[in-house]
Amino acid sequence: MAIELQGHRGARGLLPENTLPAFERAIAIGVDTLELDVGVTRDGVLVIHHDRRLNPDLARGPDGKWIAAPGPAIHSLGFEELERYDVGRLRPGSEYASRFPHQQPVDGTRIPRLEELFKKNTQVRFNIETKISPEAPQETLAPEPFARALIAEVRKAGVAARTTIQSFDWRTLAVVEREAPEIATAYLTSRRNSDPAKVHAAGGRIWSAPFEELSVQKLEAARNLGVKVIVWTVNEPADIARMIGLGVDGIISDYPDRVLEQLKRTGAR
Amino acid sequence: MAIELQGHRGARGLLPENTLPAFERAIAIGVDTLELDVGVTRDGVLVIHHDRRLNPDLARGPDGKWIAAPGPAIHSLGFEELERYDVGRLRPGSEYASRFPHQQPVDGTRIPRLEELFKKNTQVRFNIETKISPEAPQETLAPEPFARALIAEVRKAGVAARTTIQSFDWRTLAVVEREAPEIATAYLTSRRNSDPAKVHAAGGRIWSAPFEELSVQKLEAARNLGVKVIVWTVNEPADIARMIGLGVDGIISDYPDRVLEQLKRTGAR
Repeated sequence: MAIELQGHRGARGLLPENTLPAFERAIAIGVDTLELDVGVTRDGVLVIHHDRRLNPDLARGPDGKWIAAPGPAIHSLGFEELERYDVGRLRPGSEYASRFPHQQPVDGTRIPRLEELFKKNTQVRFNIETKISPEAPQETLAPEPFARALIAEVRKAGVAARTTIQSFDWRTLAVVEREAPEIATAYLTSRRNSDPAKVHAAGGRIWSAPFEELSVQKLEAARNLGVKVIVWTVNEPADIARMIGLGVDGIISDYPDRVLEQLKRTGAR
Repeated sequence: MAIELQGHRGARGLLPENTLPAFERAIAIGVDTLELDVGVTRDGVLVIHHDRRLNPDLARGPDGKWIAAPGPAIHSLGFEELERYDVGRLRPGSEYASRFPHQQPVDGTRIPRLEELFKKNTQVRFNIETKISPEAPQETLAPEPFARALIAEVRKAGVAARTTIQSFDWRTLAVVEREAPEIATAYLTSRRNSDPAKVHAAGGRIWSAPFEELSVQKLEAARNLGVKVIVWTVNEPADIARMIGLGVDGIISDYPDRVLEQLKRTGAR
């Protein structure tokens, strides 16, 4: 009944999100799982980035300037083009940067291939989100080829048993369940649509819920349905405490160090 | 770093408070500690009862009727007189009874001697509150003789290593610390006066706080002072979850079964 500790985008509170330094830090802290996001480049490379379009709050071009909004779609760029961008520092003065005052920049850091990350560690689990939306079909691969590309990469690395694929776009999860039943799936819900019954009705066994929406009642409902509950993104000490106390199945945090400290205090680690 | 589970007045939510059936139930549930209250009769017997005056919401006289308010002071009665009262059922229709709808009556149950309880079990810990107040000096023994009577009883039973003496009336704790340093003390604070710095300044090492007053900040402050934090009386699932998640040192509950279940869910048991 241990609570699974997941480092959000590695450890976004501490180091640039979805980069190898952040993943290495999360592993050093002792997370069970690296939470991360993937897209697919024009030439079919699985890369780790949260946004369907390159994020102007963290990507700098070869000229050293943060890119203009909207950034180019990941899927519109070849991998070599993508590697020209530096994602090691949040745009100074941005609202986004103000949200992560403890994030240490690592200038020169590039968007990693998923393959590189898989090679880094033989113990840690992966919770990989497919960044795709029915509202922006032109910005990514379609659900089937997207899911298949990810499945292939997971299988090639031999990490299926340590991998969960999560998505707000449940179409990709259906593909995974049908074509790669050895890989677990997790159903992300938005703040206005957080109902474990819907997850269960869709065949889901893991519900990845915004923590603000989780009540004792919803947690109980999920348990009665046999649905596990992972919560995101839990950063403040009082919230971390509340989630641990509820006995959720997993906690996704930008500050996995804080969660681990609190787990130790409660005797749950 | 395990969280200590204390059954409040035995297990008030389940069986008549401060009675042997309630203590036995709490032990069967698996509490670490029995929380209870004591007074001293006119003839010097330590007895287990929450109120300085016999509580009209739970005490019936030999005529089978619940006594009129105010009840007689425990200290004004001899032990044999006290034993005439039945404390096995809450007064039907009272506000107090409405607060504990799951409490099963045990008609015929008497106020126990502390000595009887000590003989019941060789494992469980005791957290014993001295029911005395500076505002009602005529209703009890004075602090020194009260504390000394309790110390003597604890020593006679050989349970000092498993006993904590707690009080809102810190005068009795000073006596215990001076005269029986082998017995731990815990400083109860009221809702309007909950400050770990005051406990520390008075020499306290355990703060017994109303859970509603406990914030992450106050818990942190207590930790920095080396003061342990026990919270009372935590009965509702969401509150139990919050306190477990905060990583308090102990939880006092009328429903120790609920706390234990939640501790198991979080992996802390």
